[in-house]
Amino acid sequence: MNANPVLVEALRGGVTESLHRGALAIVDARGRVHSALGDITHPVFPRSAVKVLQALPLVESGAADAFGLNDEQLALACASHGGEPRHASTSAAMLARAGVDATALECGAHWPYNDAAMKALVRADETPSALHNNCSGKHAGFVCLGCHLSNQAGSDHRRAFLRGYVKPGHAVMREVGAALQATTGWNLADTPVGTDGCSIPTYAIPLQHLAHAFARVATGVGLSPGHAKAATRLRAAVAKAPWMVAGSGRFDSRVMERLGARVFCKVGAEGMYCAALPTLGLGVAVKMDDGNTARACEVVMAVLIQKLLPLSDDEATFMGALSDVPMNNWNGIEVGRLRASAHLNDATLGSLL
Amino acid sequence: MNANPVLVEALRGGVTESLHRGALAIVDARGRVHSALGDITHPVFPRSAVKVLQALPLVESGAADAFGLNDEQLALACASHGGEPRHASTSAAMLARAGVDATALECGAHWPYNDAAMKALVRADETPSALHNNCSGKHAGFVCLGCHLSNQAGSDHRRAFLRGYVKPGHAVMREVGAALQATTGWNLADTPVGTDGCSIPTYAIPLQHLAHAFARVATGVGLSPGHAKAATRLRAAVAKAPWMVAGSGRFDSRVMERLGARVFCKVGAEGMYCAALPTLGLGVAVKMDDGNTARACEVVMAVLIQKLLPLSDDEATFMGALSDVPMNNWNGIEVGRLRASAHLNDATLGSLL
Repeated sequence: MNANPVLVEALRGGVTESLHRGALAIVDARGRVHSALGDITHPVFPRSAVKVLQALPLVESGAADAFGLNDEQLALACASHGGEPRHASTSAAMLARAGVDATALECGAHWPYNDAAMKALVRADETPSALHNNCSGKHAGFVCLGCHLSNQAGSDHRRAFLRGYVKPGHAVMREVGAALQATTGWNLADTPVGTDGCSIPTYAIPLQHLAHAFARVATGVGLSPGHAKAATRLRAAVAKAPWMVAGSGRFDSRVMERLGARVFCKVGAEGMYCAALPTLGLGVAVKMDDGNTARACEVVMAVLIQKLLPLSDDEATFMGALSDVPMNNWNGIEVGRLRASAHLNDATLGSLL
Repeated sequence: MNANPVLVEALRGGVTESLHRGALAIVDARGRVHSALGDITHPVFPRSAVKVLQALPLVESGAADAFGLNDEQLALACASHGGEPRHASTSAAMLARAGVDATALECGAHWPYNDAAMKALVRADETPSALHNNCSGKHAGFVCLGCHLSNQAGSDHRRAFLRGYVKPGHAVMREVGAALQATTGWNLADTPVGTDGCSIPTYAIPLQHLAHAFARVATGVGLSPGHAKAATRLRAAVAKAPWMVAGSGRFDSRVMERLGARVFCKVGAEGMYCAALPTLGLGVAVKMDDGNTARACEVVMAVLIQKLLPLSDDEATFMGALSDVPMNNWNGIEVGRLRASAHLNDATLGSLL
């Protein structure tokens, strides 16, 4: 891999202590590159940043309608959530809609990422279940899709049909892979494939193609009618229930609660980020070389939103606080800042269009 | 900052998903560079990697003897510990030796880094104190030094004397800064200074100088007699009580429990690492550009130890498992590996000597 440009710096005592290199692509629905920094042609694992693409079959197949999933549940199908009680109960409700329970989930269990939720479980002397897994909503969506496919096939053995839904060859994962390939235009049969944290396959796809997919999700242009309708519905669900996508105090939820349907943004592990900007008809994909998600990607996305979207003064102030972030120590003293590099700040976006 | 070489790679599905760039210096006690990768002349904040240098005045001043500090307590003065019960109680015992208690600590409080210790506090419905701060042993050492200086000055107002010991101008921090300058040979008055997580100053020092300081600690060569004696005593204390320096399951403790006095290694925040290799008379300093401490630095140190130190087959196997690390997902499936880059693996160390 080439040395991508420095996009984010961590300052201490007024000097750069650490830095984060990365690449980003901004692409329109016709596939034209609006802006690029760094290498956008090298395939990268998008991880959880593409959950909305992976949720398209849930809606397009008719499963979401068949089980009467509401906005909160559809938003959770696109989420990497904090495992707060309402996240876990909403996952459980999705499963109940399909007539199964948490034992159908194959994502594994982990302690809630949300600190208060984790401590509440500890205090109650409980251990986490698969419902607390940050991917439980996505997996509940997979299970709903699987139950729907099983019903369509007239199967009497729903649980047997579901088993192994995380494997690439399973009917559910074939649908999910087909949606990923159709939206990104990248041949998944001929690219590196890894296993994600929640055990489903993750396919390596260039940032340029990921950004193109999100421009398609933003506009519907270049999608099948079924995928276009599903994308519109999922974006609307997330705009109505942004807390579901991440949770209390988390970047994605805060940004979408503030900016509404103008931004659909989604973090992924190992420094990934994708976003759809419907009012501009653009898609965005970011990968930090070092895999730093929390502190690096969020600053990049905050800067890109400020550069691209027309914002009110209040909105600009809100986003500014997410792109130039004070870092406090254990005594609450500000000891540093996290901010965009000069390279990113000075970049003139759109010059490549 | 230049693009330093890739030292560590995170693999998934057999391909590189993320990578960590960094620089390293290996220097002997006469200041000759044994090996270097990347930029070793740019000043970097060493953070907690230099706690052993900051603990020299505690011993050299006579404070450690005056208060009868034992090996465990001296090791804790060099530690970034997990806040396990024995870490916290040992800090408290150090303070008691000097006739004060935890209210003298100015490091701030945070939840124990050790997961079991954190959850035990939550279960007991307790909140963490400054004793659980990973720096509480270092600060207890500072407080002991301050109490000793106060006694020497014949002060009746020990607590008033101690107050503000974390500030650069305080007598305690002047002693600590003098030790840092004497061992590294770097002029602290003329270098960037930041505030560390625990509120003491952190001075930017080039890796070459940091490695030189650790070669001096390894050998005593180039140190004042008082510092040389103190370094020997601190290294011996850590070799006897390596669990104190980090804690259960942590890299530094595991390596030193296994290799004994042949390695003194110490992690620091933001991708820092320093080590003394007494049998070779060498010092090591590592800084990862992206500030990734846990997964990047440890692999680098594990590789360097394997390349530099004569090891038995069992020891080599043990260290090998720390330099090529499987990464499992929530279902316990191996999904990737963390390993040294080809650049680091292929580097011929010692060629610059």
